Parts: sequence; C-alpha cells; structure tokens
Amino acid sequence: MSESRTVNKPDLSRLLDPAAIAIVGASTNPKSISGQPLAHMLACSFEGKLYPVNPKRAEVQGVKAYPDVLSLPGPCDAAVIAVGREHVPEVLEQCGQAGIPYAVILTAGFSETHTESGAEMQYRLEAAIVKSGVRVVGPNCVGVMNVIKRAYMAFGGALSDKTLRPGPLAIVSQSGGFGQSMMTFANAHGVGSNYVVSCGNEADLSFFDFAHDFLNRDEVKMIATYMEATTEGKQLRQLGRHALEVGKPILMLKVGNGGAGRRAANSHTGKLTADYTLFRTTFREGGFIEVSDLDEMADVARLVMGGKYPKGRNLGILTGSGGWGVIMAEQSEKNGLHLPNTSPEHQAKLHALKSTFSSVENPIDMMANYGDQYKAIECVMDDPAFDMFLVRSAAGPDVGIWADRFIQTAAKTDKPMIINWSSIPTRDVDVREKLERAGYLCANYAGRAARAAAIFADFALKQDRFRKGAHQVTRPIEQLFLDIKTGSGPCSERASKSYVERYGVPVTNEALLSLKAVLALNKCPVPFPVAVKLASPDIPHKTEADAVRLNINSIDDLKRAAQEVFDSGHRYAPAARIDGISIQEMSSGVEVIIGAVSDPQFGPYVMVGLGGVLTEVLGDVVHRFAPVGLDMAREMLGDLRGRDILKGVRGSPPADIDALVDVIVRVSWLIKDHADVISEIDINPLFVRPAGKGVVAADALIVPFNKTGSIESSRSKS
Amino acid sequence: MSESRTVNKPDLSRLLDPAAIAIVGASTNPKSISGQPLAHMLACSFEGKLYPVNPKRAEVQGVKAYPDVLSLPGPCDAAVIAVGREHVPEVLEQCGQAGIPYAVILTAGFSETHTESGAEMQYRLEAAIVKSGVRVVGPNCVGVMNVIKRAYMAFGGALSDKTLRPGPLAIVSQSGGFGQSMMTFANAHGVGSNYVVSCGNEADLSFFDFAHDFLNRDEVKMIATYMEATTEGKQLRQLGRHALEVGKPILMLKVGNGGAGRRAANSHTGKLTADYTLFRTTFREGGFIEVSDLDEMADVARLVMGGKYPKGRNLGILTGSGGWGVIMAEQSEKNGLHLPNTSPEHQAKLHALKSTFSSVENPIDMMANYGDQYKAIECVMDDPAFDMFLVRSAAGPDVGIWADRFIQTAAKTDKPMIINWSSIPTRDVDVREKLERAGYLCANYAGRAARAAAIFADFALKQDRFRKGAHQVTRPIEQLFLDIKTGSGPCSERASKSYVERYGVPVTNEALLSLKAVLALNKCPVPFPVAVKLASPDIPHKTEADAVRLNINSIDDLKRAAQEVFDSGHRYAPAARIDGISIQEMSSGVEVIIGAVSDPQFGPYVMVGLGGVLTEVLGDVVHRFAPVGLDMAREMLGDLRGRDILKGVRGSPPADIDALVDVIVRVSWLIKDHADVISEIDINPLFVRPAGKGVVAADALIVPFNKTGSIESSRSKS
Repeated sequence: MSESRTVNKPDLSRLLDPAAIAIVGASTNPKSISGQPLAHMLACSFEGKLYPVNPKRAEVQGVKAYPDVLSLPGPCDAAVIAVGREHVPEVLEQCGQAGIPYAVILTAGFSETHTESGAEMQYRLEAAIVKSGVRVVGPNCVGVMNVIKRAYMAFGGALSDKTLRPGPLAIVSQSGGFGQSMMTFANAHGVGSNYVVSCGNEADLSFFDFAHDFLNRDEVKMIATYMEATTEGKQLRQLGRHALEVGKPILMLKVGNGGAGRRAANSHTGKLTADYTLFRTTFREGGFIEVSDLDEMADVARLVMGGKYPKGRNLGILTGSGGWGVIMAEQSEKNGLHLPNTSPEHQAKLHALKSTFSSVENPIDMMANYGDQYKAIECVMDDPAFDMFLVRSAAGPDVGIWADRFIQTAAKTDKPMIINWSSIPTRDVDVREKLERAGYLCANYAGRAARAAAIFADFALKQDRFRKGAHQVTRPIEQLFLDIKTGSGPCSERASKSYVERYGVPVTNEALLSLKAVLALNKCPVPFPVAVKLASPDIPHKTEADAVRLNINSIDDLKRAAQEVFDSGHRYAPAARIDGISIQEMSSGVEVIIGAVSDPQFGPYVMVGLGGVLTEVLGDVVHRFAPVGLDMAREMLGDLRGRDILKGVRGSPPADIDALVDVIVRVSWLIKDHADVISEIDINPLFVRPAGKGVVAADALIVPFNKTGSIESSRSKS
Repeated sequence: MSESRTVNKPDLSRLLDPAAIAIVGASTNPKSISGQPLAHMLACSFEGKLYPVNPKRAEVQGVKAYPDVLSLPGPCDAAVIAVGREHVPEVLEQCGQAGIPYAVILTAGFSETHTESGAEMQYRLEAAIVKSGVRVVGPNCVGVMNVIKRAYMAFGGALSDKTLRPGPLAIVSQSGGFGQSMMTFANAHGVGSNYVVSCGNEADLSFFDFAHDFLNRDEVKMIATYMEATTEGKQLRQLGRHALEVGKPILMLKVGNGGAGRRAANSHTGKLTADYTLFRTTFREGGFIEVSDLDEMADVARLVMGGKYPKGRNLGILTGSGGWGVIMAEQSEKNGLHLPNTSPEHQAKLHALKSTFSSVENPIDMMANYGDQYKAIECVMDDPAFDMFLVRSAAGPDVGIWADRFIQTAAKTDKPMIINWSSIPTRDVDVREKLERAGYLCANYAGRAARAAAIFADFALKQDRFRKGAHQVTRPIEQLFLDIKTGSGPCSERASKSYVERYGVPVTNEALLSLKAVLALNKCPVPFPVAVKLASPDIPHKTEADAVRLNINSIDDLKRAAQEVFDSGHRYAPAARIDGISIQEMSSGVEVIIGAVSDPQFGPYVMVGLGGVLTEVLGDVVHRFAPVGLDMAREMLGDLRGRDILKGVRGSPPADIDALVDVIVRVSWLIKDHADVISEIDINPLFVRPAGKGVVAADALIVPFNKTGSIESSRSKS
C-alpha cells in the first residue's frame, strides 16, 4: 500500500519556503482580503522579496508595485492571486510564462458555489492549470502560511496575532477559518505551528499532497487537520500508514459524517456500514488521533509535543483534595484508563516521607501539603504499577514554586505527567506557560485531562503495536482463485457456501432436490431436525420471501414445508428461477453475522455482529479492513457491546471463540483475495457452538460486482 | 412528599448572616488553618464583630482576644472552632452555655478517619451536640461563607481571591476543596455565589438542611452541589421536588457512583438496578441538572443566571465560518438538540438584508461579515422554528463593537442566545466579561456550548412540564389491599399472577394439576401449543432449574414434559415443596420484562426492559419512581435503546404499545400501593402482541419483604 506514496508527489519546498512572493491584485487597503497578505508580511517582517502586482499603482502599501507578473525584476517562487474570478485563469497563465511554479488562489466563486457560472469558472481554471504548469493551492482558500519564515500568503484576523510562534505542528484544513482557529488555539496552549494550509476547493494540490509532504519534514512532529469530505478512502488509509511509519500522529477533526454519496447496499453487511464507519475504521487503523473539538485537539497536541508516550493505560493520580481525586479517578475510568493501586513498596516510600497523607493509595492524596508534592511524585514515578500520571496542581501564591519543583522532578521520568491545572484560565498565566514550555499539558478540567490522556494512550499503544509488526498478518490459507462471475447477480446459497467452504468456513450439511423429488421422499436425506429453504438465485433474502421453514421433525412436515416455501417464493417473485428445495441440518449455538465488502473507496473490509436484535436494532457491529490477523479478529469481538453473549449467559456454555476468530480471519482473506470480483459477502447466521465444538454457517450469500472491469472493481485493484 | 420539608427545618439565618463571630483557637499565624478565618475576614472587611478566642494571647492578629467563649463581651451568633479534636466537645458545651446557637467545626480527626479513636471522638462530639443544643456544621469541613457580608467562617486559598463577587449561586459541598473550586470557577465565568457551605462529616446539620434553606431564600436562584454519598434517597427526591416547586435548579455533581452498601437483590429487576441508577432516576425526576465537571457546571450556571429558558430543543446557529457552522451543528445534534431549517419567511428577510450570506439556511453563515451579524440575528430571532440560538462571535479588534451590537439585539428576545466565543481564553477578557455581565454564556468550544445548551433545555422542559402538572398522575384503578404475607418467601407463580391480574395485568390462561393428574389426562385442559412448568414456591427461577418446557403440541409430549420438569425440579432442589404442574397457553409477541421494587432508600419504582439479550447482556432497562402516568410510561419505552423492536423489525407488525404502557402504569400503582409489603415484582416475560391485540404476562413473581415491620418496610412507609 505504501509504494504509491513516493511517486508523483510534488516537491512543495519552493511554495512552503519562498524567497520571493508576488501578490497579484494587491490592494492599498490593508484590511481588505487582497490587501492583507502584503500587510501581514510587512507587519511581521517577512525577510524575502515581496512583489505587489497592481497595474493601477506604482506602489502598494509603500512597496514598489508591478503591472503584471511578467514584469517582475527577479525570480519568484509563489504568486498569491486575489483578483476577480474572471481574471484568475489569465493570471495563472502569465505565472506559467513568468516561471512562477506555485500559485495560492484566494479568490472564491468556483465550483464551491454549486452554480453554473462557478462550474464554468472551475473548468476554465483547471484548463489554465494544465496549460500553465503552475501548481495551485485553492481556489477559495485563506492561503498558505510558513510561520517560521513569516511567509503569510494568506488573509484572516488570526494572522495579526503577535504571539504566534512556530512549532512542531503543521495544519492542513478544508475550512480556512477553522484551520486558523486551530493555529490560534494550539498556539495559546503552547503548541506552535510551522505551516498552515487551507486547501480550498482543491482544484490541483490536495489535502493529501500537503499531509504527506509534512509527514516527511523533520521540523513537523504532528499534523492537525479539519476534514469535511473525501471520496479517497484508500488515500486516507495510505496517509494513516505513512503516519505510523514515521511515528507522527495526525490529529483528525472529521465533520460531515452523515454525508450522502455512498452506494446503496445489496447485503445486510452493506446496510450495517454507515457512511462514517469506514472513516472511523480508517482512523483506528492508521496513525490518526480522532478529536471532536479544538480543546481536545490542543490538549493532545500538547501531549505529543511533550514527547513522552505511555506504555499502557495505567494511571496514577496525585491530588491535594479528596473531591478532585474522586473526580479525576471517575473521569479517567470513564475514558477507559485503569487506576491500579500504588504498589506496597512505593506506599512504604510515601509513608517514609513523614508528610501528611490522606491516602497513599491511588489516588494519592496529600491534602494541602503541596510544598511536599514533588517528593511524593519522585517516590512513585518509578512504580511499575503506573504508565502515566495525572497531577492536581497547587494554586495561589505558591504556584510558581510548585511549578519549578514539578518541572525538576518530572524531568527525571519518561512517563508522561499531565497537570490538572487548578487556577482559572486567566490567572497565573505566566506559570502555566512556563509549564507548557517545559512540555506539560495543563488542563483545567478533570474530564479534559482524562480524555486527552486516554486518546493519547490509545495512539501510543497503536504506534507501539505497529512498531512490533502487528499489521503484518499471516495467511491461514493459500490464495485461491474462485471462479466467481461478475455481472450475473448474487451467487446462490449453495454456490456461496461452496466458496466460503473452500476458504475453510464450515457450512451446514445439506441436500438440494427438486420439489417433485422431495414430495416423493420416504426418508429425509439429512438427519432431523432440518431446515427447508427455497433455493433460487433470484431470491437472495429468503426470509423476506417467507421461503424458509425451520425445525422440521417429520417426513410429512418436510413435504408440507417444501410445498409452502415453493409457493411463497412463487408469490414473492413469480419469475424467479428455482434451483430446487434445500434440506439442511438445523444448527444451534450463538447466532453471529459475518460480512465482508469490497468497498470502492476504502478497499475490502470484514464485519462481525451478533445475530438478531443486537445487529438489526442496535447496529452492534464491528468493522476492520481486510485482511485481519487472529489478534485483530479477537479485538473485534471485544469491541461488540453484546460480547458477553459469547461468554455464555443464563446458564449457556461459553461459545467457541477460537473457531469464530478463525472464520473472521478466513473471510477477511476471501474478500481480500477477490476484491476485484466480490462486492459483498454475508454469512448469516453463523452458529457458534460451545467451546471446542466449532462453528457452522447456516446461510451464505456472495454478491459479485455488477460488471467485470467496472469502475468500482478496477479501482479496488489499484 | 412535600410535607416533611416544612417541619423540623432549622432556622439557619443567624449562622448564614452572623453579626458577631467567635473564632475559637484563633492563631496568630494568618496562613495556618486556625489563623485563616480571622485573617480573611479582616482582609475583606467583614462588618460584624470578630471575637478571637485564645487563652494564651491578649490579642490575635491585632484584634482583642478572649480566653474562652464564656468571656465574650456581647452576644455571638456563630463560633468557628479550630482547636485540637480532644477539646472540641468541651468548647461546644461552653458555646451552649454562652448562648451561641451555631458552631462551624473545622477540626478533623472524627469518624471520617475510619479509625477507632476517630469513632470515639465522633461519639463524644455527638453527645456534646445534644447536651449543648448548639447546631453544628462539620466537623472536618472547610467552613461556611456568606460572600455578601464577607462572613468567611472558613479557610482555603480561594478566600483570598479579591475578585469574588456575591451572586445568585449557593454552594453546598461534601468536599470542601471542590466546593471552593466551584465558587472560584463560577465566579470566573461571571456567576457569583452568595453562600458556600462545606458539610464535613455532617455530625448534625446535613447537606439537606442547607439545600432546603437555600431554595427558600430570595437571593438564591440556583444551587450547585458536589455529592459523594447519601443513603437518604427519599430526602434527595424531596429536595428535587422542592427545587421544581420553587423553580430553582440544583446543579448536581455526583461522584462515587460505584459505591457499595445496597442490598443484594432477589429478582432480575433488583439485579438490573445498579447503584447509580436510582440516583440518576432521582435527578431526572426532580429539579436537578446533573453535570460531570466544573466547566459544565459553570456554563449551565451562566445560562440559569441569564434567566431565559428555551421552550423546546430547536436550535438556530449563526456563524461566520462554514467549518465552525458544521462543528456547532454536529455537536448540537450529538447532544440531542434539533436543527430545523430557517422558515422561508425568515430566509426572505435575511436575503432582504443585502448582506453576503454563504447560507441563509440553518446554520446561517454570513462569512466574515460580522459587522452585519446583529441584523441577521434580529431577522431570525422571532422565527418560530427556533427556541434558542448558538452564535459564533467575532474576534480581533472589532470584537467590542460586535459585542455591543449583540447585547442590544439579543435583549429584544426572550429566547436564550449562547455565544461560541472565538477569542482564546486569555484574550479580549474585558469584552467577554461584559457579555457575561449582560447575561450571556461565552463558551470557547462548540462541544461545550452545545452540551450546556442541551442540558439546560432538558431542565427548562422538565420545569415546564412540572408547572403544567405532569407529575399529577391519575389512578387507572382503585387501591386494592392484596393480602400478601411478608416473611414467608416469594409468592408462587400462580399467586403472583393472581395479584398482578387484580391490578389489571392480563395473564396467560393456565391449569394447575398434580403430576399424577397430568399423566392421566386424555385431553389437554388448555389449547395446544402449551408451556409446561413446575409450580413450586421454592423454585422461583424455573429456567435455572430446567423446569420449563415450551411449545408442547401433543398429549404425549405434554405428559413427557410434565415428568421431565418434575424430575428436574427434584434434582435442582430435592426438598422443594411442589404445588403441581402448570399447563399454560403459549403466548407470542415482543418479549418484555416489567419489574418493580420497593427500595428502602428511594421508595418504590418501576422498570421496563426488552426481554432476552437486550436486558440480560446490555442492561437496556429504564427506571422511574412509582406511580407513573401514561406519558411517563411512554417516555420510558422511548428511552430504551432497543425501542425500535416495538415498532416491528424485519417484517413483524408494530407491537401494542398502548397496552404495554397501560401495564407499566398498573404495575407502578401495584408497587406504590403495597410498598410496605412487596419488596420486588417481576413480570418476565410479558408478551406484547401486535397493535390492538393486547399483552399477556407469561410469568410473574412477587417477592414480599422478609419480615413484617422490618427496618426496610417500615422505612418505606415513612
């Protein structure tokens, strides 16, 4: 998957670190959109050359102006374009003639307007991009910023912020305003940004071009991004892989999660996969940290910048107020962190301090003795019970002394320490900033601190698993080439079962006979009790057609059932082709649905749910991209809300989880190996018998793609 | 329920508004705990008389000191006691002799230490309270504050905050440190506190004494509280009722939700009611707003202080950034708010403004034209589509102008407007404070704004329903006096069914015969198919004993089943008394469990869950206190995660919800009318047939209390 990353990626270095910038349409009004880029760069002393382009002026904002880009006195790396939309294509062509390799188009009014004239302008713009060879950011963007060099090829109130400092963050945003808010808030939390890019409507350079470029830059340690939409699921997965490879997280704020535009589904699995599910599965798979708002984003960025990663989810809490200890503990557990107790040896060390403790157990409560808190931290920071710490800060006049001692002490461990900051946001700001500069997150609210710690730990553990090679999974079976035809509708139950069986999925014992043959039977070909189903390639959902009878126990009932399902099927779909009557052994066990889809946008994935109401009503299903290994298949089961059913409820024995895990893995390889021909697979129900007794698929449905070589299937090969 | 409120409530006015205060054990060190109360009151110019009591000093911190409280030169309203714990009882007795009606005991070392010596000291203290007649706050508390009069009978760093202003909030906290944090943070958000009380270990005056008193004070508009534990469920419910009656919310931060100490349960219903459930049910029933952290508390307090309550959950959003619009919308919907579209008439008004809109639909996006935003607000604020608004503020140099225009405009509507504040917390603080003083919440993060709006709307709608009398429910049936005996174990299925049937719950048609009689039958007394169950008062959970057979269709199968359940029951409990074999009609429909418990701490409640895995594995059950009316019973069904099952899934018809609602109401009256004798009721399963066809209880179990006049049942009468 990672090969395509290294090819065809534009070299963005002249754009991101320009020595000379033209501002086409530069206005004399420093507050207007077209006046702002020049004004901001003058205000913050950009050290490169600035060429305002304005045919009506000899100078703009005190800087010599030029009538067009062809008249510039020297080489130029990037042009900021802020002219009326009808002039943009012409300006772009001139940039090409002038040898300017990059343009940042602030002008709006293109395809993003969803108007006819906008579409026409977009068409003309794209033609000019091709003709000129100039690589374009935007249009309809707020621009590109290099904060290190103060190259602000952009507009927006956030640019006049004199406190902006460069830092390890790079921002790529599909909303310009929100991207600048990210920069402002991260900066206010002590996390500076090196680069900020607003993608606009992505006529040329895309979100992905920037994100990959940033991941490869030494000065960038993490990316923050606001994403509204992409149809490039596979590119997003590649980006996530790239992030894990370089060990730099992408803080992802994804919105628009109800978005339309995904294909209607043929199978249950398809229906059970909501739009957002595959994004979430992608974020979970790759080096993403999903955040839901700016506070979370800034907090996690602060932790990444601190550079200390937890080895697990075990949290130690140090407090001076019992109440705060309880709140921090409850919020931490609510967010999935564990609170083990202080080990006895370290409890003894705390007692030896001769300070006053309300508790040396976790949460460790020193009451108001904050003067000694650093000693307590030093005592417990090497306690192997804890992977990280949450520390309630002092407040009031002594907070500065507390902070100095905290910084000296915490520097001695590589376990992350998060501060639950007790001053109100507008007080003791200098002390808080000192702590932030030293690498610590100061979170005012216990919930915020706990949430940041938890999602940061999730990333740290994911990164760790990746380093250990958890993504390299072993094939349980040689690749088979099943002869599945596209374009002729769903495979029959019998054919579907034979395909899944060849990949090692046990299926029910069954006989397929004509109705006439069934009615003439003296003895059932399969031991009672049996299920009787109409077999028709045109009726993939037999239950809906009332074409299934279960628990048949006698030959008379069998014949009656065969006639009934035949008649029902005929009523449901009079023109349906009938293969016959299928007589199958009745199975029992925990009902599970296993599905798989070859998604045109994201690639093949596998899904598991518990049968019946849990899946149908609550949508309690879990997805992972294929193929999955045994560990991940097991993790999928652990993510089901109804997972306890597999452990046995109300006296039922524990289910054969090993056999179930094995089938999930096999189905994931089946879809992976046939992603170009199989659109969807449903195994529903799969019965999971008691431990040691295996599983059996009572029904299966394989839906091939509609056409060989369709856009979907060819895409899924790429 | 409300009668007990008005009796035996102490008059706290001299404690809360003292004219003279003694500080017993006052230290010359103004930083020590015993030195702080005097130091703080001197620093902030408390206008009443201050009497330091210290036998070793003629004066303390420049104020004339007295050797004991008996030597004070005039009347004294309250004594702050900060002496060694062994001296506390004696000082208290002296206070009684000196006619001081109240004492605030800061000293720790009593029952809260969970030591033998602490228990002994608590015993001596409580004896001194009775003997002296002095009403006591604490011990082990940080004290009592009247912020209006600057009567700080307390210690803590928060008291030196010179920005503290009085305001409509009263704080009662079971954690002193956390209570002061509440005060500090609310104050920082522009919400002042009139009173702050730390309850300590509640040797005398309780959390409830203060909360009721505050609700009755005109100067208190809301209460904020941190609660760790209470066994007084009924008192808590009374408090919630009182809050609704006076229309003042109690912002409740409840912790310690895993706490032990609740009785083991005999029935499924009991097992399905976790510790915290009844607290949550109480908060939902009464005038509480449950919050999870200080940020939420301060935000909601700000909205209450604003004084404008929404009439519904329909939110209009005004933004200047598309990205922020999307985030605000998504966070609002995630929190249960609705985002209807701007009505066509008001869209036209917006167009008539001739300003630039990216969208006049909700979220209304004016792009960067914040100068005109007030006009847009004015346009839409009377749109009946919206009950409240979320407005993204301007930022940068013009934010002050924006704020003035916003305040002028928003004053013209009684719909609440919440500001999503765009400046970082440390910037434009003066403008933010001006907006807060004018009554608006400025929330930095979209999620925070949306969450506060949603929980505030929940309260507003609850308060509205209460005003309209939703809590006054009508009896569907006259009160019956069922002759249920306590102390002799669970009632049989037959007896239990007869009791619930008398309250109007339909039960299955059945026959009870001896095994011998069944084995001699020629014809089944109930039409096939039938269920066969062993009837024994000693085997309340028949399935566990394998003493149930379902779907019996022939007389031979019936006899075999009768013998089997008899044998299974004997193996399971050889000494069990056997009433016979019960032959019951088989029912079908959606399986529901209805339960009820007479809880010793909280009173009687009713519970509903969907049968099978949803209830057993996911704990998808909903509780309300009994009795409930039809509307509330319907609301209970709406709160079930699996509620769609009742609407019909995969081709099943919609269930008879009206009949189910009726049964919930009837069961709630049954437990209410017999709360002194019935401990628990289980109706499991209740089959809900298709709409119009009613419901039927296939099994029922009534568990009386163990002893007549037990502590539990006598409590539940009080």
